[in-house]
Amino acid sequence: MSNTTSPSRGKMVNSFNPAAANHLDDHTRKLVERRSKLLGPAYRLFYSNPVEVKRGKGTRLYDSAGNEYLDAYNNVVSVGHCHPRVAEAVAAQMQTLCTHTRYIQEGILDYAEALLATLGAPLQHVMFTCTGSEANDLALRIAKHCSGNRGIIITEEAYHGNSELTSSFSPSLGEFSPLGTWVRRVPAPDSYRVPAAQMGEWMAAQVAAQIRNLQRHGEGLAAFICDSAFSSDGIFTHPSDVLAPVAKVVREAGGLFIADEVQSGFGRTGDKLWGFQRHGVKPDIVTMGKPMGNGFPVAATVLTPEAVERFGRDTRYFNTFGGNSVAIAAAQATLDVIQDEKLMENAARVGKIIRDGFADLAQRYVRIGDVRGSGLYIGVELVTDRNTKSPDPQAAAAVVNNLRERRVLISATGPNANVLKIRPPLVFSAADADRLLTEAAAVFAELPN
Amino acid sequence: MSNTTSPSRGKMVNSFNPAAANHLDDHTRKLVERRSKLLGPAYRLFYSNPVEVKRGKGTRLYDSAGNEYLDAYNNVVSVGHCHPRVAEAVAAQMQTLCTHTRYIQEGILDYAEALLATLGAPLQHVMFTCTGSEANDLALRIAKHCSGNRGIIITEEAYHGNSELTSSFSPSLGEFSPLGTWVRRVPAPDSYRVPAAQMGEWMAAQVAAQIRNLQRHGEGLAAFICDSAFSSDGIFTHPSDVLAPVAKVVREAGGLFIADEVQSGFGRTGDKLWGFQRHGVKPDIVTMGKPMGNGFPVAATVLTPEAVERFGRDTRYFNTFGGNSVAIAAAQATLDVIQDEKLMENAARVGKIIRDGFADLAQRYVRIGDVRGSGLYIGVELVTDRNTKSPDPQAAAAVVNNLRERRVLISATGPNANVLKIRPPLVFSAADADRLLTEAAAVFAELPN
Repeated sequence: MSNTTSPSRGKMVNSFNPAAANHLDDHTRKLVERRSKLLGPAYRLFYSNPVEVKRGKGTRLYDSAGNEYLDAYNNVVSVGHCHPRVAEAVAAQMQTLCTHTRYIQEGILDYAEALLATLGAPLQHVMFTCTGSEANDLALRIAKHCSGNRGIIITEEAYHGNSELTSSFSPSLGEFSPLGTWVRRVPAPDSYRVPAAQMGEWMAAQVAAQIRNLQRHGEGLAAFICDSAFSSDGIFTHPSDVLAPVAKVVREAGGLFIADEVQSGFGRTGDKLWGFQRHGVKPDIVTMGKPMGNGFPVAATVLTPEAVERFGRDTRYFNTFGGNSVAIAAAQATLDVIQDEKLMENAARVGKIIRDGFADLAQRYVRIGDVRGSGLYIGVELVTDRNTKSPDPQAAAAVVNNLRERRVLISATGPNANVLKIRPPLVFSAADADRLLTEAAAVFAELPN
Repeated sequence: MSNTTSPSRGKMVNSFNPAAANHLDDHTRKLVERRSKLLGPAYRLFYSNPVEVKRGKGTRLYDSAGNEYLDAYNNVVSVGHCHPRVAEAVAAQMQTLCTHTRYIQEGILDYAEALLATLGAPLQHVMFTCTGSEANDLALRIAKHCSGNRGIIITEEAYHGNSELTSSFSPSLGEFSPLGTWVRRVPAPDSYRVPAAQMGEWMAAQVAAQIRNLQRHGEGLAAFICDSAFSSDGIFTHPSDVLAPVAKVVREAGGLFIADEVQSGFGRTGDKLWGFQRHGVKPDIVTMGKPMGNGFPVAATVLTPEAVERFGRDTRYFNTFGGNSVAIAAAQATLDVIQDEKLMENAARVGKIIRDGFADLAQRYVRIGDVRGSGLYIGVELVTDRNTKSPDPQAAAAVVNNLRERRVLISATGPNANVLKIRPPLVFSAADADRLLTEAAAVFAELPN
C-alpha cells in the first residue's frame, strides 16, 4: 500500500467534492444541491466541475446548453451512445413483450447460444442477471456452494461490485468499506514495477501464500476472482501469461477460477473478445455486464456444468428482470453490432493510435512514466520522478479536470489515483483519437512544472 | 413449519418438473430441453405444462401459435403488457441518452421528487438500483452499517432476494438454501388461524422474543424487514394494525424497520399507494422494485437521512445501470400512468369483484377455506378440511394447472403451496375478472372430491 494518500472516508478517484461547490455556475450549483437533497450522501459526481448531460450520439455527449463533449471514458455504451440498432431493438421489443424467464421464450435461447459460442468449452450454461454486481454475487454464491469453502482471493485494489458480498471483496471502495475476514489480497501484476519475465510464477506464488494463510485461519478457498485488465489496480494488460499459473494453484486448493469480464469483455482489449482468452486460461465461471446491452441493464454469469451442478440441485435462481425479453433484445443487438461493425478490430487500431500518441507526449513530458493497455483500455501513469516512479495523483487530477474543461471526458484509476483511464466507446474513430491527443497535448503543455 | 410437504432440494411452488417432460408436445419438449442445456439446472419454469410466450398486450399474453392467455399473475407489468406510454418513453430515451448517475441529469431529480412526495417524511432520500434484490441488499448493508449490528428478523416463509445476503434471509428458497446464523424468524400474521384482535401485540411479542434470542447469541439487531402483504407466507393483508407495534420494539432494540414494498407498493393493494401506509407505520427504509418500470429493470431504496448518514460518510454507492436515463424514463411513465389512469382505484374495484366471486364459490366448494387480500393481491386458501384447516397443496396445484389449460394464468404460494395467488396487472378489468371467475368455477366443478 502506498503512503502518498491517507485514507479518507468515502474517497473516490475523480469525484466532485460537494464542500467545494462555490466555484460552480448558478445553474450547476442549484442542480448539485437539489441532487444532494434528493439522492443523499452516498452518491458521487465526476470532476471538480461536474458535467450535466442531456443527449448523446456515438462518441459525443451534449449538455443542456448544447455544448459537445468527446466521450473517451464510457465503456457501457460500447457500440456508441444511442446506437440505432440497439435503440430500435429495445423499442420494438418493448412494444411486443417484456416478461421473465419462467415462461418459454426463444430469444433468450438464441442469444445464450450465440454468447456461449464465443466463450468455448467447458463453459456451457449462462445465467442472466441485471448488473455485473449481481453476476459476481451469484458467481461467488455458486463457488461457495460448489466448493463448500468461503475464502476469496482478489487483487489489492480490486472492484467487483456493490452488493454486501461483492463489496466485501472490493477494496477500491475505500478504507472504511469493510472487507470480509475470509478475503485475502495479492498484488496486481504491475508491469511498470515488476519484471515481466516470470510474472505468472510470481503471481501464482503470491496466491499460493494467501491460500496457506486462509487455511491457517480455518478457511478453505472458494475462489480466486480477477479482472484480467486489472482496471482499478491501475490497468495492466501485459504480460498476458499471468493467469494460467494462478488458475493451477487455485484449482489444486479446491477453489474455482472466476474471470470477471465486466471490464475486459466484449472486445474491449482489441485482440480477443474476452480478457481471459488473452491469458490462455479456461475459467470455471465467467461474469460479464457493463457493455452487454449498451446501457440496457443486462449481465450474466457463465459456468461449467460442474460449477453449478450442486447449486442447481439444492436451490434455484430467479431474477425478475434478468434476461427478460427486452434485456435479451438489447444484448443480441449489441453483440450483433460488435461483430458486424468489427468493433474489436477498431479497438485494436484506434487504441494503438492513442497509445502511440501518449508515447510521443512522454518524450516531452517526464511526468508520463508509463503508457500501457490493450485495445481501447488505456492507462497513462503519471509520476513525480521517473526513477522512483513515485505516483503523482495531483497531476492526474489536473489532467482529468483540465481535459474536462476542454470537453474531453476521461478519468483516473489505480490505488494512488495517478493513472489516466482512457476507455471510450468501441466506435471511437481515428479522428476522435486525434482530438483526444491534441487536447491532451495542450493540457500537458499547460501543467505547472 | 408444516409436515404436509417434506423438504425437497430446489423445490418451488408451481414449478415444472423436467423429469416429467414426456407428456409435452414435441415443440415444447424440444424448447425445454434446449433451455436446460443452455441455461443450466438452476432455472425453473411455471406449470406442469410450461407456457411459451411471444407477445403481450394489456392483460393478455399470446404464444407463438397465436393462443391468447388471460394474465392474472404478473404484477411486474403493473400498467399492462406493453403499455404505449411506457414503451414510447423508453424508445424516446434510448434514442436520446442512456447514461449513469455520475453526470448531472434532471430527469432523475424530477422523478425522485415525485416518488418521495408519495412516501412522505421522514423518508427523504432515494437511491436507485436495478432489482428489488439489490434494493434489499443495499437496505440491509446500510442498516448494518448504521446500527453496527447484523441480526435480521423476518417472517417464517419470507422472500427478499437472490443475492448472497438477501437469499440468506429468504427461507422460501427452500430447505437447502442456507439461512444466516444471524437470521431469526417470526410467524406471519396468519389471519386465517390467529385471531385478528391483538394481532399487533402478538406479533410484537414474537419479534421481541427473537431480539432477545439474537442478543443471547451475541448479536444485536440490525433490522426487521417484511413485505406487508406477506406474499410468500400466504398473503395476509388484514388486519392492518400489525406493524406499528412491531416497529416500536424493533427501534427500542436499536434496529431499523424496513418495509419491503416490492410486492405491495405502487397501488397494488387498492387502498394506499404503499403497503406500510395501510399499517400506519413510518419505516426507516423502504425498498421497491418489480412494477416500478413496468418491466424495465429499475428499483430503489428510500431512506431517512439518519439511516444513510454514516454509510454516506464512510463509503459510496454506485450502480452502473441503477437510475440510468432510460430506467428513470420508464419509472416516470409508469408512475404517471398509475396516477392518470387511476389504477389503484381500479385495483380496489376489480379486486373486490374477484374476492366476492371466490367467496361465492366457497359456498359451493368446501375446499375453499379462506378468501383474502386487498386490491389486486388476492389469496384463496385451499384446505382438505375446514375444521382442521389442513392445507391442500394438491388441490391448489390442480386448480393452477387446470386454469392454465383454460389459458388463465395464476400461481400458488404459502409455506404449504396451498394458497392460490391472484395478482394480475392493475389494468385488469371487470370483464377480465368475470372470465377468471367463470374459468375458476369450471375448474372447481371438475375437481375430484
